[in-house]
Amino acid sequence: MDNNDRKRKINEYIQRDSFARFLGAKVEILKPGHSRVTLTITDDMLNFHGLTHGGVVFAIGDMAFAAASNSHGQTAVALNVGINFLKATTSGDRLVAEAEEQTAAGPIALYDITIRNDRTGELVAKSQDLVYRKKEWFAARDDSG
Amino acid sequence: MDNNDRKRKINEYIQRDSFARFLGAKVEILKPGHSRVTLTITDDMLNFHGLTHGGVVFAIGDMAFAAASNSHGQTAVALNVGINFLKATTSGDRLVAEAEEQTAAGPIALYDITIRNDRTGELVAKSQDLVYRKKEWFAARDDSG
Amino acid sequence: MDNNDRKRKINEYIQRDSFARFLGAKVEILKPGHSRVTLTITDDMLNFHGLTHGGVVFAIGDMAFAAASNSHGQTAVALNVGINFLKATTSGDRLVAEAEEQTAAGPIALYDITIRNDRTGELVAKSQDLVYRKKEWFAARDDSG
Amino acid sequence: MDNNDRKRKINEYIQRDSFARFLGAKVEILKPGHSRVTLTITDDMLNFHGLTHGGVVFAIGDMAFAAASNSHGQTAVALNVGINFLKATTSGDRLVAEAEEQTAAGPIALYDITIRNDRTGELVAKSQDLVYRKKEWFAARDDSG
Repeated sequence: MDNNDRKRKINEYIQRDSFARFLGAKVEILKPGHSRVTLTITDDMLNFHGLTHGGVVFAIGDMAFAAASNSHGQTAVALNVGINFLKATTSGDRLVAEAEEQTAAGPIALYDITIRNDRTGELVAKSQDLVYRKKEWFAARDDSG
Repeated sequence: MDNNDRKRKINEYIQRDSFARFLGAKVEILKPGHSRVTLTITDDMLNFHGLTHGGVVFAIGDMAFAAASNSHGQTAVALNVGINFLKATTSGDRLVAEAEEQTAAGPIALYDITIRNDRTGELVAKSQDLVYRKKEWFAARDDSG
Repeated sequence: MDNNDRKRKINEYIQRDSFARFLGAKVEILKPGHSRVTLTITDDMLNFHGLTHGGVVFAIGDMAFAAASNSHGQTAVALNVGINFLKATTSGDRLVAEAEEQTAAGPIALYDITIRNDRTGELVAKSQDLVYRKKEWFAARDDSG
Repeated sequence: MDNNDRKRKINEYIQRDSFARFLGAKVEILKPGHSRVTLTITDDMLNFHGLTHGGVVFAIGDMAFAAASNSHGQTAVALNVGINFLKATTSGDRLVAEAEEQTAAGPIALYDITIRNDRTGELVAKSQDLVYRKKEWFAARDDSG
Protein backbone atom coordinates (compact mmCIF):
# COMPACT_ATOMS: atom_id res chain seq x y z
CA MET A 1 0.00 0.00 0.00
CA ASP A 2 1.58 3.28 -1.03
CA ASN A 3 1.53 6.44 1.03
CA ASN A 4 -1.47 8.04 -0.70
CA ASP A 5 -3.52 4.89 -0.14
CA ARG A 6 -2.62 4.96 3.56
CA LYS A 7 -3.59 8.63 3.85
CA ARG A 8 -6.91 8.01 2.10
CA LYS A 9 -7.68 5.00 4.26
CA ILE A 10 -6.83 6.86 7.47
CA ASN A 11 -8.90 9.85 6.43
CA GLU A 12 -11.91 7.66 5.59
CA TYR A 13 -11.65 6.06 9.01
CA ILE A 14 -11.47 9.45 10.77
CA GLN A 15 -14.51 10.72 8.84
CA ARG A 16 -16.68 7.92 10.28
CA ASP A 17 -17.02 10.01 13.48
CA SER A 18 -20.83 9.87 13.89
CA PHE A 19 -20.99 12.44 16.67
CA ALA A 20 -18.98 14.91 14.57
CA ARG A 21 -21.50 14.50 11.73
CA PHE A 22 -24.41 14.75 14.22
CA LEU A 23 -23.13 18.12 15.50
CA GLY A 24 -22.06 19.32 12.05
CA ALA A 25 -18.33 19.51 12.85
CA LYS A 26 -15.74 19.36 10.08
CA VAL A 27 -12.67 17.25 10.90
CA GLU A 28 -9.37 17.50 8.98
CA ILE A 29 -5.98 15.88 9.40
CA LEU A 30 -3.47 18.60 8.52
CA LYS A 31 -0.49 16.28 8.73
CA PRO A 32 0.38 13.20 10.85
CA GLY A 33 -0.15 14.18 14.51
CA HIS A 34 -1.85 17.47 13.68
CA SER A 35 -5.56 18.06 13.06
CA ARG A 36 -8.20 20.78 12.97
CA VAL A 37 -11.94 20.74 13.70
CA THR A 38 -14.43 23.54 13.02
CA LEU A 39 -18.00 23.89 14.28
CA THR A 40 -20.57 26.68 14.23
CA ILE A 41 -22.52 26.80 17.48
CA THR A 42 -26.31 26.49 17.24
CA ASP A 43 -29.05 27.07 19.84
CA ASP A 44 -29.12 23.31 20.50
CA MET A 45 -25.54 23.49 21.79
CA LEU A 46 -26.10 25.93 24.65
CA ASN A 47 -26.17 25.36 28.40
CA PHE A 48 -28.68 26.81 30.86
CA HIS A 49 -26.70 30.05 31.11
CA GLY A 50 -27.26 30.56 27.35
CA LEU A 51 -23.56 29.94 26.57
CA THR A 52 -21.87 27.22 24.52
CA HIS A 53 -22.12 23.99 26.50
CA GLY A 54 -18.91 22.70 28.08
CA GLY A 55 -19.73 19.35 26.50
CA VAL A 56 -19.66 20.92 23.03
CA VAL A 57 -16.40 22.78 23.61
CA PHE A 58 -14.87 19.56 24.91
CA ALA A 59 -16.34 17.53 22.04
CA ILE A 60 -14.63 19.48 19.28
CA GLY A 61 -11.36 19.36 21.20
CA ASP A 62 -11.86 15.62 21.56
CA MET A 63 -12.55 15.25 17.82
CA ALA A 64 -9.28 17.04 17.04
CA PHE A 65 -7.49 14.89 19.62
CA ALA A 66 -8.94 11.67 18.17
CA ALA A 67 -8.06 12.66 14.60
CA ALA A 68 -4.50 13.62 15.54
CA SER A 69 -3.82 10.61 17.74
CA ASN A 70 -5.22 8.12 15.20
CA SER A 71 -3.61 9.87 12.23
CA HIS A 72 -0.77 7.33 12.09
CA GLY A 73 -3.20 4.48 11.39
CA GLN A 74 -2.63 2.95 14.85
CA THR A 75 -5.67 2.62 17.12
CA ALA A 76 -5.37 5.14 19.96
CA VAL A 77 -7.83 5.50 22.84
CA ALA A 78 -8.16 8.45 25.24
CA LEU A 79 -6.85 7.97 28.77
CA ASN A 80 -6.98 11.45 30.30
CA VAL A 81 -7.95 14.97 29.33
CA GLY A 82 -7.33 18.04 31.47
CA ILE A 83 -9.25 21.00 30.05
CA ASN A 84 -9.31 24.65 31.12
CA PHE A 85 -12.27 26.80 30.10
CA LEU A 86 -11.09 30.35 29.42
CA LYS A 87 -13.73 32.36 27.58
CA ALA A 88 -17.44 31.89 26.93
CA THR A 89 -18.97 31.78 23.44
CA THR A 90 -22.56 31.42 22.27
CA SER A 91 -24.90 30.62 19.39
CA GLY A 92 -23.57 31.84 16.04
CA ASP A 93 -19.91 31.72 17.10
CA ARG A 94 -17.60 29.47 15.10
CA LEU A 95 -15.07 27.43 17.09
CA VAL A 96 -11.80 26.04 15.76
CA ALA A 97 -9.96 23.29 17.62
CA GLU A 98 -6.38 22.32 16.78
CA ALA A 99 -4.49 19.33 18.14
CA GLU A 100 -0.69 19.00 18.00
CA GLU A 101 1.26 15.91 18.98
CA GLN A 102 3.82 16.63 21.71
CA THR A 103 5.33 13.21 22.26
CA ALA A 104 4.53 9.77 20.90
CA ALA A 105 6.85 7.06 22.11
CA GLY A 106 5.75 3.53 22.81
CA PRO A 107 2.21 3.03 24.04
CA ILE A 108 1.63 6.59 25.30
CA ALA A 109 1.25 9.84 23.34
CA LEU A 110 0.41 13.40 24.43
CA TYR A 111 -1.43 16.18 22.53
CA ASP A 112 -1.93 19.90 23.12
CA ILE A 113 -5.34 21.16 22.06
CA THR A 114 -6.38 24.78 21.63
CA ILE A 115 -9.95 25.83 20.98
CA ARG A 116 -10.40 29.36 19.66
CA ASN A 117 -13.21 31.68 18.65
CA ASP A 118 -12.55 31.85 14.92
CA ARG A 119 -13.67 35.48 14.56
CA THR A 120 -11.74 37.00 17.47
CA GLY A 121 -8.88 34.50 17.72
CA GLU A 122 -9.41 34.37 21.50
CA LEU A 123 -8.63 31.18 23.40
CA VAL A 124 -11.92 29.53 24.43
CA ALA A 125 -10.33 26.48 26.05
CA LYS A 126 -7.03 24.65 26.22
CA SER A 127 -6.35 21.03 27.05
CA GLN A 128 -3.66 18.39 27.36
CA ASP A 129 -4.78 14.96 26.20
CA LEU A 130 -3.17 11.58 26.75
CA VAL A 131 -3.76 8.40 24.70
CA TYR A 132 -2.92 4.76 24.96
CA ARG A 133 -1.88 3.30 21.61
CA LYS A 134 -3.02 -0.27 21.06
CA LYS A 135 -1.15 -2.87 19.06
CA GLU A 136 -3.91 -2.72 16.43
CA TRP A 137 -3.49 -0.77 13.18
CA PHE A 138 -6.57 0.14 11.14
CA ALA A 139 -4.32 1.16 8.24
CA ALA A 140 -1.27 -0.87 7.30
CA ARG A 141 1.65 0.08 9.49
CA ASP A 142 3.97 2.60 7.91
CA ASP A 143 7.50 1.25 8.13
CA SER A 144 9.07 4.12 6.24
CA GLY A 145 9.72 6.06 9.47
CA MET B 1 -39.44 33.32 48.61
CA ASP B 2 -39.81 30.11 50.59
CA ASN B 3 -37.62 27.06 50.17
CA ASN B 4 -39.94 25.19 47.79
CA ASP B 5 -40.14 28.24 45.55
CA ARG B 6 -36.35 28.44 45.48
CA LYS B 7 -36.04 24.74 44.65
CA ARG B 8 -38.59 25.04 41.85
CA LYS B 9 -36.90 28.10 40.40
CA ILE B 10 -33.46 26.48 40.52
CA ASN B 11 -34.77 23.30 38.91
CA GLU B 12 -36.50 25.25 36.13
CA TYR B 13 -33.21 27.04 35.45
CA ILE B 14 -31.24 23.76 35.33
CA GLN B 15 -33.79 22.20 32.96
CA ARG B 16 -33.12 24.91 30.33
CA ASP B 17 -29.96 22.98 29.33
CA SER B 18 -30.53 22.89 25.53
CA PHE B 19 -27.71 20.47 24.80
CA ALA B 20 -29.06 18.02 27.41
CA ARG B 21 -32.46 18.14 25.64
CA PHE B 22 -30.76 17.81 22.24
CA LEU B 23 -28.99 14.60 23.32
CA GLY B 24 -31.98 13.31 25.29
CA ALA B 25 -30.29 13.41 28.69
CA LYS B 26 -32.33 13.56 31.90
CA VAL B 27 -30.92 15.91 34.55
CA GLU B 28 -31.94 15.78 38.24
CA ILE B 29 -30.78 17.64 41.32
CA LEU B 30 -30.83 15.05 44.09
CA LYS B 31 -30.05 17.58 46.82
CA PRO B 32 -27.99 20.78 46.95
CA GLY B 33 -24.53 19.99 45.60
CA HIS B 34 -25.53 16.54 44.31
CA SER B 35 -27.01 15.69 40.93
CA ARG B 36 -27.57 12.79 38.52
CA VAL B 37 -27.79 12.62 34.74
CA THR B 38 -28.87 9.64 32.64
CA LEU B 39 -28.53 9.12 28.90
CA THR B 40 -29.04 6.18 26.56
CA ILE B 41 -26.36 6.08 23.86
CA THR B 42 -27.55 6.13 20.23
CA ASP B 43 -25.70 5.52 16.96
CA ASP B 44 -25.31 9.30 16.54
CA MET B 45 -23.16 9.41 19.69
CA LEU B 46 -20.39 7.08 18.54
CA ASN B 47 -16.81 7.85 17.49
CA PHE B 48 -14.96 6.36 14.53
CA HIS B 49 -14.01 3.28 16.55
CA GLY B 50 -17.76 2.54 16.99
CA LEU B 51 -17.63 3.36 20.72
CA THR B 52 -19.38 6.08 22.73
CA HIS B 53 -17.73 9.38 21.81
CA GLY B 54 -15.51 10.96 24.48
CA GLY B 55 -17.47 14.16 23.90
CA VAL B 56 -20.68 12.42 24.93
CA VAL B 57 -19.19 10.80 28.02
CA PHE B 58 -17.76 14.18 29.01
CA ALA B 59 -21.04 15.97 28.21
CA ILE B 60 -23.16 14.00 30.65
CA GLY B 61 -20.50 14.42 33.34
CA ASP B 62 -20.52 18.14 32.56
CA MET B 63 -24.32 18.28 32.83
CA ALA B 64 -24.16 16.67 36.26
CA PHE B 65 -21.36 19.05 37.24
CA ALA B 66 -23.33 22.09 36.03
CA ALA B 67 -26.50 21.00 37.83
CA ALA B 68 -24.65 20.30 41.11
CA SER B 69 -22.55 23.47 41.04
CA ASN B 70 -25.51 25.72 40.20
CA SER B 71 -27.88 23.93 42.60
CA HIS B 72 -27.47 26.63 45.24
CA GLY B 73 -28.94 29.30 42.92
CA GLN B 74 -25.54 31.02 42.53
CA THR B 75 -24.12 31.28 39.01
CA ALA B 76 -21.13 28.92 38.71
CA VAL B 77 -18.95 28.55 35.62
CA ALA B 78 -16.52 25.72 34.86
CA LEU B 79 -12.80 26.45 35.20
CA ASN B 80 -11.14 23.06 34.87
CA VAL B 81 -12.08 19.43 34.36
CA GLY B 82 -9.66 16.52 34.59
CA ILE B 83 -11.31 13.38 33.24
CA ASN B 84 -10.05 9.80 33.08
CA PHE B 85 -11.64 7.41 30.59
CA LEU B 86 -11.76 3.91 32.06
CA LYS B 87 -14.06 1.65 30.08
CA ALA B 88 -15.64 1.84 26.65
CA THR B 89 -19.41 1.66 26.04
CA THR B 90 -21.45 1.73 22.85
CA SER B 91 -24.87 2.24 21.27
CA GLY B 92 -27.70 0.94 23.47
CA ASP B 93 -25.78 1.34 26.72
CA ARG B 94 -27.27 3.63 29.35
CA LEU B 95 -24.85 5.93 31.19
CA VAL B 96 -25.42 7.45 34.62
CA ALA B 97 -23.35 10.43 35.79
CA GLU B 98 -23.35 11.57 39.41
CA ALA B 99 -21.75 14.76 40.74
CA GLU B 100 -20.95 15.32 44.43
CA GLU B 101 -19.73 18.58 45.91
CA GLN B 102 -16.41 18.15 47.73
CA THR B 103 -15.74 21.71 48.90
CA ALA B 104 -17.48 25.01 48.28
CA ALA B 105 -15.89 27.92 50.09
CA GLY B 106 -15.72 31.41 48.65
CA PRO B 107 -15.44 31.73 44.88
CA ILE B 108 -14.14 28.20 44.21
CA ALA B 109 -15.91 24.84 44.51
CA LEU B 110 -14.85 21.29 43.60
CA TYR B 111 -16.95 18.32 42.43
CA ASP B 112 -16.27 14.61 41.99
CA ILE B 113 -18.05 13.07 39.02
CA THR B 114 -18.49 9.37 38.32
CA ILE B 115 -19.93 8.06 35.07
CA ARG B 116 -21.09 4.45 35.14
CA ASN B 117 -22.59 1.90 32.80
CA ASP B 118 -26.03 1.57 34.39
CA ARG B 119 -26.42 -2.13 33.60
CA THR B 120 -23.04 -3.38 34.80
CA GLY B 121 -22.25 -0.69 37.39
CA GLU B 122 -18.75 -0.40 35.91
CA LEU B 123 -16.92 2.93 36.00
CA VAL B 124 -16.84 4.41 32.49
CA ALA B 125 -15.08 7.64 33.47
CA LYS B 126 -14.22 9.69 36.53
CA SER B 127 -13.49 13.38 36.79
CA GLN B 128 -12.70 16.21 39.19
CA ASP B 129 -14.34 19.49 38.22
CA LEU B 130 -13.61 23.00 39.46
CA VAL B 131 -15.94 26.03 39.23
CA TYR B 132 -15.73 29.73 39.78
CA ARG B 133 -18.80 31.06 41.56
CA LYS B 134 -19.84 34.52 40.43
CA LYS B 135 -21.47 37.13 42.60
CA GLU B 136 -24.70 36.67 40.61
CA TRP B 137 -27.59 34.59 41.94
CA PHE B 138 -30.30 33.39 39.51
CA ALA B 139 -32.48 32.36 42.47
CA ALA B 140 -32.77 34.53 45.58
CA ARG B 141 -29.84 33.86 47.87
CA ASP B 142 -30.61 31.40 50.63
CA ASP B 143 -29.62 32.96 53.95
CA SER B 144 -30.85 30.08 56.05
CA GLY B 145 -27.44 28.37 55.98
CA MET C 1 6.99 -17.21 48.63
CA ASP C 2 4.09 -16.98 51.04
CA ASN C 3 1.86 -13.96 51.49
CA ASN C 4 3.75 -12.50 54.47
CA ASP C 5 7.02 -12.69 52.55
CA ARG C 6 5.41 -10.85 49.63
CA LYS C 7 4.05 -8.14 51.94
CA ARG C 8 7.43 -7.69 53.60
CA LYS C 9 9.24 -7.53 50.27
CA ILE C 10 6.76 -5.00 48.86
CA ASN C 11 6.96 -2.86 51.99
CA GLU C 12 10.78 -2.88 51.93
CA TYR C 13 10.67 -1.74 48.31
CA ILE C 14 8.20 1.09 49.09
CA GLN C 15 10.37 2.25 52.02
CA ARG C 16 13.33 2.91 49.68
CA ASP C 17 11.66 6.21 48.68
CA SER C 18 14.67 8.54 49.16
CA PHE C 19 12.71 11.76 48.74
CA ALA C 20 10.19 10.65 51.38
CA ARG C 21 13.10 10.08 53.81
CA PHE C 22 14.68 13.40 52.80
CA LEU C 23 11.47 15.29 53.66
CA GLY C 24 10.74 13.17 56.74
CA ALA C 25 7.51 11.66 55.41
CA LYS C 26 6.16 8.39 56.78
CA VAL C 27 4.74 6.03 54.16
CA GLU C 28 2.42 3.11 54.99
CA ILE C 29 0.55 0.58 52.87
CA LEU C 30 -2.77 0.09 54.66
CA LYS C 31 -3.87 -2.73 52.37
CA PRO C 32 -3.32 -3.52 48.67
CA GLY C 33 -4.28 -0.44 46.67
CA HIS C 34 -4.61 1.77 49.74
CA SER C 35 -1.87 3.80 51.41
CA ARG C 36 -1.28 6.70 53.80
CA VAL C 37 1.52 9.24 54.09
CA THR C 38 2.08 11.75 56.90
CA LEU C 39 4.42 14.71 57.02
CA THR C 40 4.89 17.65 59.37
CA ILE C 41 5.61 20.86 57.49
CA THR C 42 8.84 22.69 58.33
CA ASP C 43 10.10 26.17 57.39
CA ASP C 44 12.12 24.60 54.56
CA MET C 45 8.90 23.49 52.89
CA LEU C 46 7.29 26.92 52.42
CA ASN C 47 6.79 28.97 49.26
CA PHE C 48 7.42 32.73 48.92
CA HIS C 49 3.95 33.50 50.31
CA GLY C 50 4.98 31.73 53.56
CA LEU C 51 2.58 28.83 52.91
CA THR C 52 3.25 25.12 52.35
CA HIS C 53 4.82 24.76 48.90
CA GLY C 54 2.64 23.24 46.19
CA GLY C 55 5.53 20.92 45.46
CA VAL C 56 5.40 19.55 49.01
CA VAL C 57 1.62 19.07 48.99
CA PHE C 58 1.93 17.29 45.65
CA ALA C 59 4.91 15.23 46.86
CA ILE C 60 3.10 13.59 49.75
CA GLY C 61 0.12 12.88 47.50
CA ASP C 62 2.56 11.37 45.01
CA MET C 63 4.17 9.22 47.71
CA ALA C 64 0.75 7.85 48.68
CA PHE C 65 -0.05 7.31 44.98
CA ALA C 66 3.25 5.48 44.39
CA ALA C 67 2.82 3.28 47.47
CA ALA C 68 -0.78 2.37 46.56
CA SER C 69 -0.11 1.75 42.87
CA ASN C 70 2.99 -0.40 43.53
CA SER C 71 1.41 -2.22 46.48
CA HIS C 72 0.63 -5.29 44.35
CA GLY C 73 4.32 -5.88 43.63
CA GLN C 74 3.93 -4.87 39.97
CA THR C 75 6.00 -1.90 38.75
CA ALA C 76 3.69 1.07 38.16
CA VAL C 77 4.78 4.45 36.81
CA ALA C 78 2.82 7.71 36.93
CA LEU C 79 1.24 8.93 33.69
CA ASN C 80 -0.97 11.83 34.76
CA VAL C 81 -1.98 13.67 37.92
CA GLY C 82 -4.70 16.30 38.10
CA ILE C 83 -4.51 18.09 41.44
CA ASN C 84 -6.78 20.77 42.94
CA PHE C 85 -5.41 22.95 45.73
CA LEU C 86 -8.20 23.78 48.17
CA LYS C 87 -6.81 25.20 51.41
CA ALA C 88 -3.46 26.63 52.46
CA THR C 89 -1.39 25.26 55.34
CA THR C 90 1.94 26.35 56.80
CA SER C 91 4.90 25.44 58.99
CA GLY C 92 3.93 23.25 61.94
CA ASP C 93 0.86 21.79 60.25
CA ARG C 94 0.75 18.02 59.78
CA LEU C 95 -0.55 16.74 56.46
CA VAL C 96 -2.05 13.31 55.82
CA ALA C 97 -2.39 11.96 52.31
CA GLU C 98 -4.48 8.89 51.51
CA ALA C 99 -4.60 7.06 48.17
CA GLU C 100 -7.40 4.67 47.21
CA GLU C 101 -7.41 2.51 44.09
CA GLN C 102 -10.49 3.16 41.93
CA THR C 103 -9.88 0.79 39.04
CA ALA C 104 -6.98 -1.47 38.09
CA ALA C 105 -7.57 -3.46 34.95
CA GLY C 106 -4.86 -4.30 32.46
CA PRO C 107 -2.05 -1.79 32.06
CA ILE C 108 -3.91 1.23 33.48
CA ALA C 109 -5.01 1.97 37.06
CA LEU C 110 -6.59 5.04 38.67
CA TYR C 111 -6.26 6.38 42.21
CA ASP C 112 -8.10 9.04 44.24
CA ILE C 113 -5.86 10.97 46.60
CA THR C 114 -6.98 13.24 49.43
CA ILE C 115 -4.59 15.42 51.39
CA ARG C 116 -5.92 16.74 54.68
CA ASN C 117 -4.79 18.95 57.51
CA ASP C 118 -4.55 16.34 60.28
CA ARG C 119 -5.62 18.69 63.06
CA THR C 120 -8.70 20.24 61.41
CA GLY C 121 -9.60 17.43 59.01
CA GLU C 122 -9.98 20.03 56.23
CA LEU C 123 -9.22 19.07 52.62
CA VAL C 124 -5.92 20.69 51.59
CA ALA C 125 -5.83 19.16 48.10
CA LYS C 126 -7.46 16.40 46.08
CA SER C 127 -6.13 14.59 43.05
CA GLN C 128 -6.86 11.85 40.55
CA ASP C 129 -3.77 9.90 39.51
CA LEU C 130 -3.26 7.54 36.61
CA VAL C 131 -0.51 4.88 36.29
CA TYR C 132 0.83 2.60 33.62
CA ARG C 133 1.59 -0.86 34.98
CA LYS C 134 4.62 -2.49 33.41
CA LYS C 135 5.05 -6.20 32.84
CA GLU C 136 7.77 -6.22 35.53
CA TRP C 137 7.08 -7.42 39.06
CA PHE C 138 9.50 -6.49 41.86
CA ALA C 139 7.82 -9.01 44.16
CA ALA C 140 6.76 -12.43 42.89
CA ARG C 141 3.39 -12.18 41.18
CA ASP C 142 0.50 -13.15 43.42
CA ASP C 143 -1.59 -15.73 41.61
CA SER C 144 -4.00 -16.27 44.46
CA GLY C 145 -6.44 -13.61 43.19
CA MET D 1 8.16 53.41 42.23
CA ASP D 2 9.80 53.12 38.83
CA ASN D 3 9.87 50.00 36.74
CA ASN D 4 13.32 48.83 37.88
CA ASP D 5 12.26 49.12 41.51
CA ARG D 6 9.16 47.04 40.81
CA LYS D 7 11.24 44.38 39.04
CA ARG D 8 13.72 44.24 41.91
CA LYS D 9 10.98 44.02 44.50
CA ILE D 10 9.15 41.28 42.60
CA ASN D 11 12.36 39.31 42.11
CA GLU D 12 13.26 39.57 45.82
CA TYR D 13 9.80 38.27 46.69
CA ILE D 14 10.14 35.32 44.27
CA GLN D 15 13.58 34.45 45.67
CA ARG D 16 12.10 33.89 49.15
CA ASP D 17 10.94 30.42 47.98
CA SER D 18 12.31 28.33 50.86
CA PHE D 19 11.63 24.98 49.25
CA ALA D 20 13.47 26.04 46.08
CA ARG D 21 16.51 26.91 48.24
CA PHE D 22 16.13 23.66 50.20
CA LEU D 23 16.29 21.60 46.98
CA GLY D 24 18.95 23.82 45.38
CA ALA D 25 16.76 25.06 42.51
CA LYS D 26 17.54 28.30 40.71
CA VAL D 27 14.50 30.43 39.89
CA GLU D 28 14.53 33.23 37.27
CA ILE D 29 11.85 35.52 35.88
CA LEU D 30 12.72 35.88 32.19
CA LYS D 31 10.04 38.51 31.56
CA PRO D 32 6.56 39.14 33.00
CA GLY D 33 4.59 35.91 32.72
CA HIS D 34 7.61 33.83 31.76
CA SER D 35 10.05 32.07 34.09
CA ARG D 36 12.69 29.33 34.18
CA VAL D 37 13.83 27.00 36.95
CA THR D 38 16.86 24.70 36.89
CA LEU D 39 17.74 21.88 39.29
CA THR D 40 20.34 19.12 39.30
CA ILE D 41 18.89 15.88 40.64
CA THR D 42 20.63 14.31 43.64
CA ASP D 43 20.27 10.87 45.27
CA ASP D 44 17.93 12.44 47.86
CA MET D 45 15.44 13.24 45.11
CA LEU D 46 14.82 9.70 43.86
CA ASN D 47 11.80 7.45 44.29
CA PHE D 48 11.86 3.74 45.16
CA HIS D 49 12.38 2.81 41.51
CA GLY D 50 15.66 4.81 41.57
CA LEU D 51 14.23 7.51 39.27
CA THR D 52 13.63 11.22 39.87
CA HIS D 53 10.66 11.51 42.24
CA GLY D 54 7.40 12.75 40.74
CA GLY D 55 7.27 15.21 43.63
CA VAL D 56 10.58 16.74 42.52
CA VAL D 57 9.58 16.96 38.85
CA PHE D 58 6.32 18.59 39.90
CA ALA D 59 8.09 20.90 42.37
CA ILE D 60 10.33 22.55 39.81
CA GLY D 61 7.36 22.97 37.46
CA ASP D 62 5.47 24.50 40.36
CA MET D 63 8.34 26.89 41.13
CA ALA D 64 8.33 28.08 37.51
CA PHE D 65 4.53 28.39 37.64
CA ALA D 66 4.64 30.39 40.89
CA ALA D 67 7.36 32.72 39.59
CA ALA D 68 5.53 33.34 36.30
CA SER D 69 2.10 33.81 37.84
CA ASN D 70 3.37 36.17 40.55
CA SER D 71 5.70 38.04 38.18
CA HIS D 72 3.23 40.93 37.81
CA GLY D 73 3.42 41.74 41.54
CA GLN D 74 -0.14 40.50 42.13
CA THR D 75 -0.61 37.63 44.59
CA ALA D 76 -1.57 34.49 42.66
CA VAL D 77 -2.39 31.12 44.23
CA ALA D 78 -2.54 27.75 42.47
CA LEU D 79 -5.97 26.26 41.84
CA ASN D 80 -5.29 23.29 39.57
CA VAL D 81 -2.38 21.55 37.91
CA GLY D 82 -2.72 18.76 35.36
CA ILE D 83 0.68 17.15 34.79
CA ASN D 84 1.75 14.42 32.36
CA PHE D 85 4.94 12.47 33.08
CA LEU D 86 6.66 11.59 29.82
CA LYS D 87 10.23 10.45 30.40
CA ALA D 88 12.16 9.28 33.46
CA THR D 89 15.38 10.92 34.65
CA THR D 90 17.69 10.13 37.54
CA SER D 91 20.48 11.34 39.82
CA GLY D 92 22.94 13.62 38.02
CA ASP D 93 20.44 14.78 35.40
CA ARG D 94 19.72 18.51 35.21
CA LEU D 95 16.09 19.52 34.74
CA VAL D 96 14.90 22.81 33.27
CA ALA D 97 11.31 23.96 33.78
CA GLU D 98 9.82 26.84 31.79
CA ALA D 99 6.45 28.48 32.43
CA GLU D 100 4.65 30.64 29.84
CA GLU D 101 1.49 32.63 30.51
CA GLN D 102 -1.30 31.68 28.12
CA THR D 103 -4.12 33.93 29.33
CA ALA D 104 -4.45 36.31 32.25
CA ALA D 105 -7.78 38.10 32.36
CA GLY D 106 -9.54 39.00 35.59
CA PRO D 107 -9.07 36.64 38.51
CA ILE D 108 -7.96 33.58 36.51
CA ALA D 109 -4.73 32.98 34.59
CA LEU D 110 -3.35 29.89 32.82
CA TYR D 111 0.25 28.74 32.31
CA ASP D 112 1.90 26.08 30.15
CA ILE D 113 4.87 24.43 31.80
CA THR D 114 7.47 22.23 30.12
CA ILE D 115 10.10 20.31 32.05
CA ARG D 116 13.04 19.08 30.00
CA ASN D 117 16.21 17.10 30.49
CA ASP D 118 18.76 19.85 29.91
CA ARG D 119 21.34 17.58 28.27
CA THR D 120 19.08 15.76 25.81
CA GLY D 121 16.35 18.37 25.39
CA GLU D 122 13.75 15.63 25.87
CA LEU D 123 10.39 16.44 27.46
CA VAL D 124 10.31 15.00 30.99
CA ALA D 125 6.86 16.34 31.89
CA LYS D 126 4.32 18.87 30.69
CA SER D 127 1.60 20.61 32.65
CA GLN D 128 -1.18 23.18 32.42
CA ASP D 129 -1.52 25.27 35.57
CA LEU D 130 -4.36 27.51 36.68
CA VAL D 131 -4.16 30.32 39.27
CA TYR D 132 -6.56 32.55 41.13
CA ARG D 133 -5.28 36.10 41.34
CA LYS D 134 -6.14 37.86 44.60
CA LYS D 135 -6.85 41.56 44.97
CA GLU D 136 -3.58 41.88 46.91
CA TRP D 137 -0.40 43.21 45.28
CA PHE D 138 2.96 42.58 46.95
CA ALA D 139 4.60 45.11 44.62
CA ALA D 140 2.88 48.37 43.74
CA ARG D 141 0.40 47.82 40.93
CA ASP D 142 1.77 48.64 37.51
CA ASP D 143 -0.66 51.01 35.82
CA SER D 144 1.46 51.49 32.74
CA GLY D 145 -0.28 48.62 30.96
